[in-house]
Amino acid sequence: MGKIDEVVSKIVSVRLEMFTEAQKRLDNLTKPQGSLGKLEDIAKRLVAIKENLNPSFGRKVIFVFAGDHGVAEEGVSAYPKEVTCQMVYNFLKGGAAINVLTEHVGAEVVIVDMGVAEDIEPHPLLKMKKVGYGTKNMLKEKAMTKEEAIQCVEVGIEVFEEEYKKNPVDMVGVGDMGIANTTSSSAILAAISGEKVEDVTGRGTGVDDKIWQRKVDVVRKALQFHLPHVRGPLDVLSRVGGYEIGGIAGCIIAAASYKVPVVLDGFICTAGALIATELCPKLRDYLFASHLSGEKGHRIALEHLKLVPLLDLDLRLGEGTGAALAMSLIEASAKIISQMATFEEAKVAREINNKLNKCK
Amino acid sequence: MGKIDEVVSKIVSVRLEMFTEAQKRLDNLTKPQGSLGKLEDIAKRLVAIKENLNPSFGRKVIFVFAGDHGVAEEGVSAYPKEVTCQMVYNFLKGGAAINVLTEHVGAEVVIVDMGVAEDIEPHPLLKMKKVGYGTKNMLKEKAMTKEEAIQCVEVGIEVFEEEYKKNPVDMVGVGDMGIANTTSSSAILAAISGEKVEDVTGRGTGVDDKIWQRKVDVVRKALQFHLPHVRGPLDVLSRVGGYEIGGIAGCIIAAASYKVPVVLDGFICTAGALIATELCPKLRDYLFASHLSGEKGHRIALEHLKLVPLLDLDLRLGEGTGAALAMSLIEASAKIISQMATFEEAKVAREINNKLNKCK
Repeated sequence: MGKIDEVVSKIVSVRLEMFTEAQKRLDNLTKPQGSLGKLEDIAKRLVAIKENLNPSFGRKVIFVFAGDHGVAEEGVSAYPKEVTCQMVYNFLKGGAAINVLTEHVGAEVVIVDMGVAEDIEPHPLLKMKKVGYGTKNMLKEKAMTKEEAIQCVEVGIEVFEEEYKKNPVDMVGVGDMGIANTTSSSAILAAISGEKVEDVTGRGTGVDDKIWQRKVDVVRKALQFHLPHVRGPLDVLSRVGGYEIGGIAGCIIAAASYKVPVVLDGFICTAGALIATELCPKLRDYLFASHLSGEKGHRIALEHLKLVPLLDLDLRLGEGTGAALAMSLIEASAKIISQMATFEEAKVAREINNKLNKCK
Repeated sequence: MGKIDEVVSKIVSVRLEMFTEAQKRLDNLTKPQGSLGKLEDIAKRLVAIKENLNPSFGRKVIFVFAGDHGVAEEGVSAYPKEVTCQMVYNFLKGGAAINVLTEHVGAEVVIVDMGVAEDIEPHPLLKMKKVGYGTKNMLKEKAMTKEEAIQCVEVGIEVFEEEYKKNPVDMVGVGDMGIANTTSSSAILAAISGEKVEDVTGRGTGVDDKIWQRKVDVVRKALQFHLPHVRGPLDVLSRVGGYEIGGIAGCIIAAASYKVPVVLDGFICTAGALIATELCPKLRDYLFASHLSGEKGHRIALEHLKLVPLLDLDLRLGEGTGAALAMSLIEASAKIISQMATFEEAKVAREINNKLNKCK
C-alpha cells in the first residue's frame, strides 16, 4: 500500500453525536440560543473534529506551497514567472502579507518549495522539497508525470507530519504561491466538476480582458487535449495541476488523518481540496473555507465541496492570507464554546455572591 | 455652549489627500494592486483618520453601554427586564461572549451602567453613570426627559474622555446591553430614516411571529404618538430612545473629536450612530460597521449611514461582540499598510543579498 492510501485509510468521518453534545452546551451559554450565528456552527464542527467540548488551538501553522507552472509561457498571468521565486524570498524575509497576517493571528508560517523554477537558498522557514523545476506546459503535454503527481501529494503529507512530530499542530492553514496557478486551478475545477471553462476561469492577480480570453482558450484547449484520457484525481493533477496544488492536497489529507481542522485559503487551495476530497470524500468534515475570493470559479468550487466561506473581503492575493484571517475567527469560536459561562455557572456564582442577589 | 456642542465643534472631516498617499503606499507593497480588497479600503481610511501612513493600535477599548427600557412591559422581548442586570454582572465576572472576544482580540472592555433598573455594586470594570432606573414606556410618554437625553450623550462623552486621559485609546468599539432595546432602535431608525416600521423592526434576541407583530404595533403606535412633535435627534432620543443608546452616541462623538476610529457593533449601536451623525454628519468618516446582523433593519440603517459591514456571520447578540471580531480585521489592515515590504525595500534587500541575485 502506498503512502497516500495508507494516510487516506486513517481518515474517519466525525461523529454526529458530538454535534448534539456541542449544541447542548451552546444552548446553555449565557446568550440567546443561536445568537452567535456562524461562530456556533464553527464551534460545533470543532468539537466534532477534536472530540472535545473544550477545543483549544495552541499551535496554528500555515503551510505555503510554492511552485512554478510551464503554462505561464502562454502569457496567462499579469506577472512573469520569476515572481514566484522573488515572493518566496519575500516570505522568508518576513515582508509579505502572509508574514504580517500570521503574526497578527498568532500563527506560524512554513514555506514549502514544491517546485519553484530556481534553486532557493536554505532558510529556517523553508522546507526544500522540490519535485521539479516548474511543471511542463499543460497545453502541450502533461504538466507532470504520474510519479511526480504522487510525489507532490506525498511531500504534502510529509511536511505536515514533520511539523506535527516536532510539536502537535492544532489547526492548519494552507496557502499557495505560483505564477499562473489560477490557470491550473481552473482546469482542475473544470475537469472535476464538469462546469464550463468560462465560468470557472477568472482574472487571477488582475489580468485584462484580452489576457482573460487567452486564459480561457488555454484552459479549454488543455482540457480538450487531456480530458478524454483522464483517470482519477491524481491523473487530473498530473495533467493540468501544479506541484504546489499537489502539496496542498497532501497536507489536507495528512491533517485530516490526524483530526486537525484545515483552513483553506482561496481558489488554488480549494482546487487542492478538490483533488484531496476526490481521493477521500470523508475529509470534507475537516475543511473550513476561509473566504470567498474575487476569483471567478471560487464560488463554484466551494459549492462543489459544500463549504460556506467565513469572510467576503474581495481578497485575491493567495499566500494563505485569507486562511490566516479566518483562523482567528475559528479560534474565537472555540473560545466561545470553551470559555463562556453557562446559565448554571452564572447561577451558582449568584448564590455564593451576595452582591448578585439583587438580580433574580 | 453645552458640552455636546463643544465636542461636536472639534470634529473635522478627514483629509482626502491622505487617501491618495495611502493608495500610493498600498500600490508599492509586494502584492498585486488591490489584491487585499476590503483590507486596503480599511487601511486607507485608517491612514486618513490617524493622518499617519503607519497607523498602529496599541490600545483598543470596547465600551458596553447598559440600560433598561420601560417599553419592555409591553412584552416585546423574549427575555424579562431583569436579564439586563444579570448580564451586566456576567460581564463583570468575565463569563459573557464579549469578555471572551475582547480577550481574544487583545482589547479591553469597559462596562457603563447608563440606566439599569437596579443598582449594581461597584467593580473595577464598571463605570457607574446611571441617568435613571430604566426609561419610561415610550408608548405612553417620552422615554426620558430632554435633560436626561442630553445627560446620556454627555455621559458617553465623559466615559470616553476618562479612559482616554488615563491612557490614549487607539481604537474604540461600542456595544450594548438592554432588554427591549431593539424596539427602541427600530423606532429611532424609523423616525430618522422615514422607512416603514415593519421594514425596520426585527426579531431581536429571537421572538416568535406573535411577539414580532406586537413589537411592530408598539413601534408604530409610539411613532404615531411622538413623531408629530419631534424636533431634532436629541428629541428622538428623548422620546423613543434608551439611556444606553444615548451613551453610545456620546461615545462616538467623543472618539471622533479625538480622531479615534469607532467600530460599531450591531443594530443598537447603529441606532446610536444615527443619532450621533444627525448631531454631526462629519463624524461618519470615523465609523466602521463591524458586521451585518440578522436583525431586520440593520441593513437599512447601515445604508442610511453609507457604511459597508465587514463581517456577515448572522450574529444577533449585541454586547459589542461583532465589534470585537471586526477590530481584529481592522488592526490587520493597519499592519498590512505599515508592516509589509514595498517593492523597493525588497529590491534593496536583493541588491545587498547575494542569495537573492538569482531572482531578477
